Amino acid sequence: MELNEALERYKKLQAKMAAYGHAMSLIYYDGVTGAPKGTAANRAQTLSVLSEEDYVISTGKETTDLLEYLDSHREELGEKDRRSVYLALKGIREMQKIPMDEYIEYQKLMVEADDIWHRAKETSDFELFRPVLEKVFEYTIRFARYCAPEKDVYDYCLDRYAEGLTTETCDMFFDALKEKLVPLLKRISEKPQISDECICGDFDEKAQEEFAYQLMKIIGLDTDHCGLATTEHPFTTSLGSHHDVRITTNYHRENVSYSMYSVIHEGGHALYDSGSEDELAYTNLDGGAAMNIHESQSRFYENILGRSRGFISYIYPVMCRYFPEQMANHTEDELYRAVNVVTPSLIRTEADEVTYCLHIMIRYELEKKLMHGQLQVRDLPSEWNRLYREYLGIEVPCDREGVLQDSHWSGGLIGYFPSYALGSAYGAQFLRRMKEDIDVEGCLREGNFAPINAWNRERIWIFGRSKTPEELLENTLAEKFDPFVYTDYLEKKYSEIYNL
Amino acid sequence: MELNEALERYKKLQAKMAAYGHAMSLIYYDGVTGAPKGTAANRAQTLSVLSEEDYVISTGKETTDLLEYLDSHREELGEKDRRSVYLALKGIREMQKIPMDEYIEYQKLMVEADDIWHRAKETSDFELFRPVLEKVFEYTIRFARYCAPEKDVYDYCLDRYAEGLTTETCDMFFDALKEKLVPLLKRISEKPQISDECICGDFDEKAQEEFAYQLMKIIGLDTDHCGLATTEHPFTTSLGSHHDVRITTNYHRENVSYSMYSVIHEGGHALYDSGSEDELAYTNLDGGAAMNIHESQSRFYENILGRSRGFISYIYPVMCRYFPEQMANHTEDELYRAVNVVTPSLIRTEADEVTYCLHIMIRYELEKKLMHGQLQVRDLPSEWNRLYREYLGIEVPCDREGVLQDSHWSGGLIGYFPSYALGSAYGAQFLRRMKEDIDVEGCLREGNFAPINAWNRERIWIFGRSKTPEELLENTLAEKFDPFVYTDYLEKKYSEIYNL
Repeated sequence: MELNEALERYKKLQAKMAAYGHAMSLIYYDGVTGAPKGTAANRAQTLSVLSEEDYVISTGKETTDLLEYLDSHREELGEKDRRSVYLALKGIREMQKIPMDEYIEYQKLMVEADDIWHRAKETSDFELFRPVLEKVFEYTIRFARYCAPEKDVYDYCLDRYAEGLTTETCDMFFDALKEKLVPLLKRISEKPQISDECICGDFDEKAQEEFAYQLMKIIGLDTDHCGLATTEHPFTTSLGSHHDVRITTNYHRENVSYSMYSVIHEGGHALYDSGSEDELAYTNLDGGAAMNIHESQSRFYENILGRSRGFISYIYPVMCRYFPEQMANHTEDELYRAVNVVTPSLIRTEADEVTYCLHIMIRYELEKKLMHGQLQVRDLPSEWNRLYREYLGIEVPCDREGVLQDSHWSGGLIGYFPSYALGSAYGAQFLRRMKEDIDVEGCLREGNFAPINAWNRERIWIFGRSKTPEELLENTLAEKFDPFVYTDYLEKKYSEIYNL
Repeated sequence: MELNEALERYKKLQAKMAAYGHAMSLIYYDGVTGAPKGTAANRAQTLSVLSEEDYVISTGKETTDLLEYLDSHREELGEKDRRSVYLALKGIREMQKIPMDEYIEYQKLMVEADDIWHRAKETSDFELFRPVLEKVFEYTIRFARYCAPEKDVYDYCLDRYAEGLTTETCDMFFDALKEKLVPLLKRISEKPQISDECICGDFDEKAQEEFAYQLMKIIGLDTDHCGLATTEHPFTTSLGSHHDVRITTNYHRENVSYSMYSVIHEGGHALYDSGSEDELAYTNLDGGAAMNIHESQSRFYENILGRSRGFISYIYPVMCRYFPEQMANHTEDELYRAVNVVTPSLIRTEADEVTYCLHIMIRYELEKKLMHGQLQVRDLPSEWNRLYREYLGIEVPCDREGVLQDSHWSGGLIGYFPSYALGSAYGAQFLRRMKEDIDVEGCLREGNFAPINAWNRERIWIFGRSKTPEELLENTLAEKFDPFVYTDYLEKKYSEIYNL
């Protein structure tokens, strides 16, 4: 086999996998958007066929031989091809270390765990969920040992969602958060509450939807290549390539900020996903590099930009046009304060900018201990509740609003949570760097996202997965990651708002 | 190979093809419903991969060998398996008779023809379309000769959309229509026009959508398994199996009857598609038998039921609830007459019950002559215009509203049109038979579609493609197809309405 011929075959193979990915993502997307509610079993049937085909194509002998051949010529490959082959082989080699029967058992467990978690959450019954959750952690530990026997089991998990991330980095990061944010929250809690009346009321869903499209355009999304739909939980997905990205939101009639900020958050993911350079389309390097970098974009647009004075100054008159009655007796300053209210609360996805990372910190501490055998699943609810008391100062009334709230553990996504908090922190450091090049506040006051997007695009987006998260951070920061930049940002912003 | 093992493999193969079908139909559906408008090329990329995979799986050596083996044991197969293998092999054997390079050329021609037709229609420029349309007819004739050298070329085309249909049957049918409907239309045209004021006005789209869902329920669709979306042109599609069917419509603010009757029409297709018995799911026998039978259902629900006195008597008060202002000063009788206005018009898809089949008849005569070399493509516009003058009594002002209006010929669907008219005619004969068993008018007055649907289900729907169109007609009619039943039905109904 000639190298050029092999590369041509590899290109075709990747295009094939992108097509399967497109089909499977669209079937999922259809299921949560337009599909009639009795059709889940029909989708499951099709997905089982397509995922089997996809598995065979991605990991079959023909593919493995091709990848091994390319890998044996890696010195002759361009940087991108080398990275692409490395990533594809990494996945296959890990998969090959897991005994097939255990892998199949695990897939079954995932279906069971999701179902049981839903029921357990509904009835707030942790004991119902406990046995299956124990199995999820057992399998996760076992698979981590199979795949990377040289590594700490939790490090292996972290690396799956944020290549190169370690417990050491996370410990350093969360220690800084704990040191700074727990006291900050305490000081805020002692101050009088801020009114959020301004974003509460009765907001017509059609008007919210029109406003959502306007927001997409303002932050610089190309609505010819990015769609918007309504789902129970907002998310972002790419279909086939970065040329077709979809975000979703949910309209809460009684509070306009929910859809507003979920659109900007998902919009941040979508900007990143759509920003890969064109030659990466239909390859495994298309789209975002890792979850921590992804969240650094989504939470940057949502919070650091979206909840800034500058942006509020731009968006306030826009909102007055879309919601004239509701905004009638409220000022720009009231809007700014309303979208920045800090309240310790039970539910992560509804948390404000200050408490959000504390929610993540709790999950990080717990899953790390579970993975290291320093905590048993049966003791999880009491530990959860204890940490919410300690860090957030609130009592958890029931497991439904506590340890059962997130779908991540039932879905096997152990090691995922830290990316949310790390991404938030990267964002603050990006901002500091960006300000050296751009008048960020000035751009936001004018609703001019073009220079901000260009800055992110050339440092992060265009590379897709062709660089590691660490390389992207280096690219962007030109300095070491420093969590205190984030805590400083929060302290400064909220000291001003709460007059601390 | 054991027969049972072969059947098991065949079952798996069909499930695989159903999954590909699901993915490809959904990608198309997404393209015309929610997809951002710049994403067509991205979908084309994925579709080209999936259709190649599908082609390889459906027609590859492994599949052909399996089917030939099953065919060689056909006497031992159950009736349904035999039919399924017959249909699959028929497709493959025809495909094998077409030289691969010509087949690929034809696929390219289809893409080109669609594009050129759109542009030609926009600018009403038949000369732009002519060369490509000539090629479409040339290929159609050549492929017909390859696939069925023993058959008349146009008979071959008719059979593709309605198995067993011949030019002989069509001639007999359209002669009857011409004899009866052309004079009927002339008599109607001499009478005073009927007002359709009642269905015209300003109808809120949201209210129309809610009414559309209500209509779906009234005619007996299970909205847990049948979805509704908005597209430029209404259509029906199944996704994967009869367990997930989607219909689409379009809301015209100025005329409520457009979405109302498109929902009932597509609803008829959807009832039929969803009605296959469960064991047919994920096989090539799932869904409708042929286009003529399909149209017999859709046009039966739309016209014969939906525009009847009984149904209008039921739906009138319902419409008064959904559109209280618009319906305020109109009576049930005005509504009945408004939805049954007959006007010779230029556009097929907007035609009424009497003139619709005349539009089809014109297309039938023209494509038959084109296929038999008795008419040249360059003479098509003048012939089209002459026939509109002769049968409908109207002048065609431009090709855009004349010979360029339909997408069928540019899409290679030659032989498809007659099914629309035949289906309409079958419906009238179904009604006569149905009335022997059911008080149809009484059911409609009560909005009770259950007995009507049960009648169709047990005679037609449950069989999917396991019976031929002819067998289904026999099942349902227990007598020969007689086009005069249809012309009698129209004469009686419209003599009363127009006081002839």
